[in-house]
Amino acid sequence: MFLVLYSRGWSDLNSMPRLEKIEYKPIPVRELLLEMKNLSELMIDLAYSAALFNDKELAEDVLELENRVDTLAYLLEMEILIAARDVEDAEALTGVSGVASAADKISDAAADIAGIVMQNIGVHPIVSKVFEKVEERLMRTKVSEGSILVGKEIGELDLAARMGVDIIAIRRNKDWIIDPKETEQIKLSDILIARGAPSGVKEFKELAEGKLKKLED
Amino acid sequence: MFLVLYSRGWSDLNSMPRLEKIEYKPIPVRELLLEMKNLSELMIDLAYSAALFNDKELAEDVLELENRVDTLAYLLEMEILIAARDVEDAEALTGVSGVASAADKISDAAADIAGIVMQNIGVHPIVSKVFEKVEERLMRTKVSEGSILVGKEIGELDLAARMGVDIIAIRRNKDWIIDPKETEQIKLSDILIARGAPSGVKEFKELAEGKLKKLED
Repeated sequence: MFLVLYSRGWSDLNSMPRLEKIEYKPIPVRELLLEMKNLSELMIDLAYSAALFNDKELAEDVLELENRVDTLAYLLEMEILIAARDVEDAEALTGVSGVASAADKISDAAADIAGIVMQNIGVHPIVSKVFEKVEERLMRTKVSEGSILVGKEIGELDLAARMGVDIIAIRRNKDWIIDPKETEQIKLSDILIARGAPSGVKEFKELAEGKLKKLED
Repeated sequence: MFLVLYSRGWSDLNSMPRLEKIEYKPIPVRELLLEMKNLSELMIDLAYSAALFNDKELAEDVLELENRVDTLAYLLEMEILIAARDVEDAEALTGVSGVASAADKISDAAADIAGIVMQNIGVHPIVSKVFEKVEERLMRTKVSEGSILVGKEIGELDLAARMGVDIIAIRRNKDWIIDPKETEQIKLSDILIARGAPSGVKEFKELAEGKLKKLED
């Protein structure tokens, strides 16, 4: 049995997701639902940032991620259909299906905001004003030459304890790594999306841009 | 001209929002949109927590807030219609209207999750597993007798600098105070909803519960 699946990477050709026919392997429902939830939350933050900075590139990211959420929703619905063998199963699983639909709806809302940014009407000052606090907790930065982060594993940086910062996504060329593992190595030119307290986020941005050369203890 | 408006407080009678006929005063679109955005984000976090702890009371809170967002959406649409005087205005304001719709959609999604909690099917372990990380950044606690927070203004606690914590909402009896001011005084039995780094959130919870008696510098 074959399923059409999005791979983690996107093709460079036309910024459309790369489609691959891969052998069907069941992905645990829990993993699918967790990724849908995490993606939908990330998309909201990205969409707000896109609106704040009238950033079309970021808005395109959101629209790409929306495709991925749709695929996850499809796979999850399949898994649920396979898993439900009797009335009890089915009843228990309706809650899971409902949460998945909610995550899908949230990602749709993010895509709506991204769509507004993609239109050429500009972002109304009211919208910018409303989103200006977002940047206090979400940060998007590119790893520059000379940054001490290059080549480091996320785990060894101990960001949570040091500055209350969490790297929630890495964009590497056209790939997205959502909720990266502790062992993921940061590379030159990675775009990092991090969340945290304002002071920590500021410090981390300076590390990524090579302006700050030392990790404080 | 009169409009039906929700006041900040809800009646105790039947947990339905209290409706008041108040003299029409225009509320700035920016304020309406900001409250819609903040409420929709808060609702998502509350809905996740409600699902995690199978907490019907919290789920009811979410459903109540959904009513409030609907009212805000209605008022905002009215203000926009009044504000648009020509094609240029209208074009500029479609973006504002679009963002408001997105916030409304997000709050609908939160209400969907709350609705699942309100059904008596229990929350599936998969859903609990997926939401278990939420509590790391969102905290809901009741101010207990003996807590040093009682009678303090939020501003004087200096929570952001001290422990990276932000009080995002207070539930006082049936009232909700969203994004409370620095001058808001914390009262005994307030339910506080705070966001922040795990360590700070833990410390703050202990302060609210009276287990920790001193603010660290």
